[in-house]
Amino acid sequence: MRVLGVDPGTWRTGVGILDFEKGACNPVHYEVLWLQGKSKKDYQELSKRLRKIHDSLTEVFKIYKPDVMALEDVFYGQDFKAAVRIGEARAVAILAATEFDVRVSEYSPTQVKSAVCGNGRASKIQIQYMVRHLLKLRENPPADAADALAVAICHCHSSKYVQLSTGNSR
Amino acid sequence: MRVLGVDPGTWRTGVGILDFEKGACNPVHYEVLWLQGKSKKDYQELSKRLRKIHDSLTEVFKIYKPDVMALEDVFYGQDFKAAVRIGEARAVAILAATEFDVRVSEYSPTQVKSAVCGNGRASKIQIQYMVRHLLKLRENPPADAADALAVAICHCHSSKYVQLSTGNSR
Repeated sequence: MRVLGVDPGTWRTGVGILDFEKGACNPVHYEVLWLQGKSKKDYQELSKRLRKIHDSLTEVFKIYKPDVMALEDVFYGQDFKAAVRIGEARAVAILAATEFDVRVSEYSPTQVKSAVCGNGRASKIQIQYMVRHLLKLRENPPADAADALAVAICHCHSSKYVQLSTGNSR
Repeated sequence: MRVLGVDPGTWRTGVGILDFEKGACNPVHYEVLWLQGKSKKDYQELSKRLRKIHDSLTEVFKIYKPDVMALEDVFYGQDFKAAVRIGEARAVAILAATEFDVRVSEYSPTQVKSAVCGNGRASKIQIQYMVRHLLKLRENPPADAADALAVAICHCHSSKYVQLSTGNSR
């Protein structure tokens, strides 16, 4: 099973791809889409950024052919405006997935942190460190890519439990 | 100038189209996209709803060929989760606009209410009533369609001011 993890944001979107085979997660690819525009207030810029997220993820779907896309659910952040922005980035990722008939799975931040660090309140740095350790990477992945890989790892863990209980890995 | 107003939501999205000619707004079309799924918690359903908003708006762009899309900006609502959902619906509307090279203009709720009702704190019912009155409609449009028409009217008003000051209606 190939899992695409996405950490969506309208300024930076993290992308991480894993193969989950025989109970092990093997890294395939990770990257951060940088979406900087000239001004945060410029709406043409936002629409260009959303278009870029969509088009870049479309390329990822074409090249890597994931079976599933895993996203972190959003809960009770500090900033209403930021929540709207996260929703915007999430939507274009979900839309790209539907174009390739790839199903979308969603996990809470606590589930992701628990799956990767064994602690639902782990820090960003702990996630980076554990993702590097679990995937045997030579260096820490960038924070946004680490978050994307973390949600992909979380999906593999959840699938493993499903496999144990139902005998079906997908 | 043809203006498409959109009031985005992942359960209902309002659509309203006006022609703005010689200082007057003439209604062309309005509708509410109903996006009900089986369950609010079912993510497949959300992705289907986002796809439906995108595909329905794509049809609107093809049929009515608007020059500009007007959206209400989102400010300080009560619910973080609701903000994410609004962002999701906004994004697919913006993405559809970029596919047709239609520019996106954005107005605050206060701007929209002031443009339509002369009062930045007008109620939903006042907006419905004034939209009906301003566009000489035979009946009140549904609330979501009225909001979409209201943001389109707001864009026309703003364009009128631009016209007065620069001699250019667009």
